[in-house]
Amino acid sequence: MSQIISGPTAKLVEEKNFAFVATLMKDGSPQITPVWVDFEKDTNTVLINTAEGRIKHKNISRDPRIAISVVNHNNPYEMVTIRGKVIEQITKGAAEHADKLAKKYLGLDKYPYHSPNEKRVVLKIEPERVFHQQPPK
Amino acid sequence: MSQIISGPTAKLVEEKNFAFVATLMKDGSPQITPVWVDFEKDTNTVLINTAEGRIKHKNISRDPRIAISVVNHNNPYEMVTIRGKVIEQITKGAAEHADKLAKKYLGLDKYPYHSPNEKRVVLKIEPERVFHQQPPK
Repeated sequence: MSQIISGPTAKLVEEKNFAFVATLMKDGSPQITPVWVDFEKDTNTVLINTAEGRIKHKNISRDPRIAISVVNHNNPYEMVTIRGKVIEQITKGAAEHADKLAKKYLGLDKYPYHSPNEKRVVLKIEPERVFHQQPPK
Repeated sequence: MSQIISGPTAKLVEEKNFAFVATLMKDGSPQITPVWVDFEKDTNTVLINTAEGRIKHKNISRDPRIAISVVNHNNPYEMVTIRGKVIEQITKGAAEHADKLAKKYLGLDKYPYHSPNEKRVVLKIEPERVFHQQPPK
C-alpha cells in the first residue's frame, strides 16, 4: 500500500537534499549509507542510483525493504522519513540517470565518477509510510 | 568485537554533526531516524539520547543491532558509518546528558524539550565496524 509523497515532503525529495538509506544485511542487521535521491511524481516513487554489486544493491536484491531519511539542507531539523520497498531495478538509462543526479547535486552535466568497471542501476522505491518531521517551534 | 573510533572518525562523532540511526522494526524492516550523538572516548562507545517508548527505543530493546552515519556538517561528502549494537541502556543521568547534547548542538544550557511525560534514556553503542568515507578527490 503506497502513501503519496506531496507538498512539503515532495519538496524535500525534489530539492538538492541528501538522503540516508537503511537496508538489511544478510544477517538482518541494518546498514546505512548516504545517497542522492530523485522523485518521480507520476509514479510516486523515489529513485536512487547505485552500482551493481555494492552492499546496498546486494542487500535490496535479497530483501527489498528500505528506509530513507531526507533532510532539508537549509534546516537540518526538517526532514521526511520514508519506509517502503524497492519494487524495480532499472539498468536501462541508469548511467544517464546518474548524470541527471550529478546535475542536481553538483551542477555538472556528467556524473564525474563513471567507471567502465561498474554498471549503474536505478532502484525504484515505493513509499509505504511517509513521516514529515518539522522543526520544533 | 569492538573497532576503535579514533582520529578523523572520532572528530566526526565529537563535533557538532548530525547522525542518522537505523534500527530494526518488529518485522525486521529497517527504520531510520536523525539523532544528536556523543562519543565516550574512554569506553570507545557512541552515546545517543532518546526517550523511553519511542520507536527506536522499542526497536533496540527488542534487537540491539544498529547502524549510525555521522556526516561532517562542513562537507556532506565526508562521514563515518558505524555498525554495532546497543550494549547498555542508562537512565541515571540521562536528563543531564540531554542537557549536555543541547549545549553541544544548540548552545543552550538546558535541553529545551524536557517533558514530565517522558523519561530520557542513554543508549550506549559498541562500534563493531567503522567505515570512514572521505570526499572524492
